[in-house]
Amino acid sequence: MSDTLFSINGKIVPEAQAVVPVTDRGFLYGDGLFETLHAYGRTVFRLDEHLARMRTGFKVMGFDPAPDSKVLAKWVAEAVHAARYPEANVRLTVTRGSGARGPSVKGKLTPFAAITVTRFKRRPASHYTRGVDAVMASFRRQESSVTANLKTTAYMEQIFARREADAAGADEALLLNNAGLLCEGSASNVTLVRDGALLVPDPKLVGALPGTVQRIAAELAEELKIPVRRVGLGPWSLRECDEAFLTGSMREITPLVKVDGRAIGSGKPGPVTKRLIAAYRKLVQRECPGYRF
Amino acid sequence: MSDTLFSINGKIVPEAQAVVPVTDRGFLYGDGLFETLHAYGRTVFRLDEHLARMRTGFKVMGFDPAPDSKVLAKWVAEAVHAARYPEANVRLTVTRGSGARGPSVKGKLTPFAAITVTRFKRRPASHYTRGVDAVMASFRRQESSVTANLKTTAYMEQIFARREADAAGADEALLLNNAGLLCEGSASNVTLVRDGALLVPDPKLVGALPGTVQRIAAELAEELKIPVRRVGLGPWSLRECDEAFLTGSMREITPLVKVDGRAIGSGKPGPVTKRLIAAYRKLVQRECPGYRF
Repeated sequence: MSDTLFSINGKIVPEAQAVVPVTDRGFLYGDGLFETLHAYGRTVFRLDEHLARMRTGFKVMGFDPAPDSKVLAKWVAEAVHAARYPEANVRLTVTRGSGARGPSVKGKLTPFAAITVTRFKRRPASHYTRGVDAVMASFRRQESSVTANLKTTAYMEQIFARREADAAGADEALLLNNAGLLCEGSASNVTLVRDGALLVPDPKLVGALPGTVQRIAAELAEELKIPVRRVGLGPWSLRECDEAFLTGSMREITPLVKVDGRAIGSGKPGPVTKRLIAAYRKLVQRECPGYRF
Repeated sequence: MSDTLFSINGKIVPEAQAVVPVTDRGFLYGDGLFETLHAYGRTVFRLDEHLARMRTGFKVMGFDPAPDSKVLAKWVAEAVHAARYPEANVRLTVTRGSGARGPSVKGKLTPFAAITVTRFKRRPASHYTRGVDAVMASFRRQESSVTANLKTTAYMEQIFARREADAAGADEALLLNNAGLLCEGSASNVTLVRDGALLVPDPKLVGALPGTVQRIAAELAEELKIPVRRVGLGPWSLRECDEAFLTGSMREITPLVKVDGRAIGSGKPGPVTKRLIAAYRKLVQRECPGYRF
């Protein structure tokens, strides 16, 4: 893979050395966590928030010892600086490490950390100006799963959902949870706008990953005096709402204008979504010196 | 890890070379399948059945191309022969390979196959003569999950369940599914015996992995004129049954005599379980020349 820089346990290495033992529990069992970070210039946007989410994951999964967030932050920053890309997709993966076979976790294991920094090609401008479409996945997410709120490397449901989107030529697949509530996209969060207010599927209620960009979008909305409601939403809410948008570190805030072929609202990016996209870009430019959209 | 032989894509390698690129989708997303096989002497017990289950997984997960079972069988046999252990735990892991980042699967990827052959230490004889105990996991399995019937490397729920067993000092954790039906253990299948008949939780109904040893136990029961019923069972069935046993490639048929501190039946391995253990050992000895329990 060209245009990618690799860091293994804090050491920048050539691609051929960017490997993990096949005894690693991340490889064997998906016993790991990851974060996808967006580097604008040399600045990793909201690195601390991603590391805080990962820390919650270490706690829930019982990583003992858990890697030090300060060390991880240093390794990420060093990798991004070494890569010198104008904009990058940074993936930080931390597994429990190599140890005894089987689901039992016995003894102290040494976590394994892999960082890849990949030159980022921005999505077409039309994604932001005209919006994207989604399909509803044919299966449901388990909101009571022990890992529903975690970004584990056990990502098969997301892969299955994305296959359904790809098969339909859509940009994303949305999932309902078992209770029939709107949950999240395969690799994004979904937020609706109705009567001038943001309707955010409550991650704890619906079993979604608490998205960093979704939360930032809600904070920006509050600054703009747009009311924010954290709620449970049935699938019909997609027909009743005025606007919708997807969020993610790499896709930022993207208008969602169609689901299963049915237009959302006017079928065009709405005014609230547009204001939030503009506010998000300003925020990124403020926090990431030298970066311009 | 001493006492382990490594094979990567069909080539036997020293441990230092038993690695997978960090761009592999198995490492990134748990986008892979595995089988745990039991080698008795130089013979891998029911290798074909394991590979048939894996083939189903390749199909469901859309591996394109899927690895050839004959090639995988050859690689497994070669690794087992090279290891020369009197008895071994063989793990075959096949991932989708390295490719484009993100949940989307684009283009033809080359699957990655890792085989580890580890010298097997048999569990204490008391596991078979006195039985083992289990706890009920605090969370439920999603029977409607797209991967419920597959042995994917996305194994976090099993790890969480096993942690609960380990914390309680129990040998295994049993899971109910969302419908409240008895599903499976963290790394085993569970079968009950009542009124002289086997009660097997139907894998498709309850969302369990179709266990090879569980199916063989049912076939042996039928040969012994013990009726076999594939059913859905509520948790109360553990209180009503006369016997229970766990199955798995490495644990074979193990009596389950206690769940959450409550004895099953007499609290001792029952007559049907004992007959099946004896029949299973005979079968293994018949199919694995030279091996004696």
